[in-house]
Amino acid sequence: MIDRRAAFHALHRSGRPLLLPNAWDHASAAALAARGHPAIGTTSLGVAATAGLPDGAAATAGETLALARRLARLPVLLSVDVEAGFSDDPAEVAGYVTELAGLGVVGINLEDGRPDGTLAEPESVADTIAAVKAAVPDLFVNARTDTWWLGVADPLPEALARARAYRAAGADGIFAPGTVDPATLRVLTERLDAPVNALYQPGGPGLAELGRAGVARVSTGSLLFRAALGAAVEAADAVRTGGVAVAAGLPSYAEVQGLVATDGD
Amino acid sequence: MIDRRAAFHALHRSGRPLLLPNAWDHASAAALAARGHPAIGTTSLGVAATAGLPDGAAATAGETLALARRLARLPVLLSVDVEAGFSDDPAEVAGYVTELAGLGVVGINLEDGRPDGTLAEPESVADTIAAVKAAVPDLFVNARTDTWWLGVADPLPEALARARAYRAAGADGIFAPGTVDPATLRVLTERLDAPVNALYQPGGPGLAELGRAGVARVSTGSLLFRAALGAAVEAADAVRTGGVAVAAGLPSYAEVQGLVATDGD
Repeated sequence: MIDRRAAFHALHRSGRPLLLPNAWDHASAAALAARGHPAIGTTSLGVAATAGLPDGAAATAGETLALARRLARLPVLLSVDVEAGFSDDPAEVAGYVTELAGLGVVGINLEDGRPDGTLAEPESVADTIAAVKAAVPDLFVNARTDTWWLGVADPLPEALARARAYRAAGADGIFAPGTVDPATLRVLTERLDAPVNALYQPGGPGLAELGRAGVARVSTGSLLFRAALGAAVEAADAVRTGGVAVAAGLPSYAEVQGLVATDGD
Repeated sequence: MIDRRAAFHALHRSGRPLLLPNAWDHASAAALAARGHPAIGTTSLGVAATAGLPDGAAATAGETLALARRLARLPVLLSVDVEAGFSDDPAEVAGYVTELAGLGVVGINLEDGRPDGTLAEPESVADTIAAVKAAVPDLFVNARTDTWWLGVADPLPEALARARAYRAAGADGIFAPGTVDPATLRVLTERLDAPVNALYQPGGPGLAELGRAGVARVSTGSLLFRAALGAAVEAADAVRTGGVAVAAGLPSYAEVQGLVATDGD
């Protein structure tokens, strides 16, 4: 366990970022693992939407735990998005994360955006981070600030202040979704003493350019889930209208069945 | 309930087939419903793979019921794939299907392929169909024969004999996956007094041509699920290699969140 967590930490290298693709069910996780990704995250939007629940609303604690239980058996390092911890009580969050860690999870994402669309007080987020790190010291806690997503007027100073508070509380990495501007990311990566995680944006800078800005992890957030959902609906549309239903290269029935066999047991 | 089942029956018109796309979770079902499909089925491969379980192995009775409970709230007619009924005991299968019907499910698929890759005796399948129809008379029981998929030497006569036995036991429709040959389908549709369901195959005949062969339902089986999974893995590959991650037109975060609101409650 300790070795797997150390391995996950070591994959975070400023300038040569870890691509962490985000899965939402066993099939997507197993397929990504089979494709050679050494580590995967989860997407809270995907986990929520597959269950018919809202994202970012502290509604999916059970689904997230059940998913982690399934994915923990896969031969891949697993980091789990726990939204804002599914509770305002640091001790409760720490208890929940301890349960995840017991399954073999090597990291979590913890966000400062709240279900009502506001940013939590940085002190309360820091308290939660500290409680989690006290409970599971070697777990990689990736602290996400929603400064950009929630439309803070001057996001960069706010993000830096929050990131420093989270880092001081024990966060291992800082996640700043909503900006892929290389100059902004460079400020973050130069002024923070922790790996910085950027969220990939289609049409934005690629892995190499994000690496040049000092980024140590690039995740895909809900992108793969949305790509999957879009492909399914498009294929159905194409059958309905007599078009070409799918591009080549989709997995066969046997390949999908084979994903079950990639379990450790 | 009766009206919704009658509406589902009425969508089966030889020559003008119902396209029944197959979903595997709330998001895929809600997205297909939002796209205007009046009815959706489920794909047992998708349901199994998302849970990390094998398909066609009677392993997903709980997952299938849980999914039906989620999807039953959507404003769409729902038919559920129950593999071979998850039991060899007709009374147990009837009890399970009664539970599904109580959720608002309007139809089921029941297959004669067995977990060991052989075809069940037609009499035992007929017994199960009869038990289900006795329990829930107005439910659309779509009896699937795996004659083609399991490699029967002379599949057409075998399929006709089985279909007649299943129809005599009360089946409302006959599903013959594995052949999209119009001449073969025409024999089935002309010699059987029940709606015939074909499985769409990419590169094979389209909806219109299948309609001309007399088909009354075209389903997509695991195709949409596999297209989704393929798109996710491809998008991750593209990010990793610096390519273009996704085609245009994928649903936005807000659109995915909005799928939750399409529930009836």
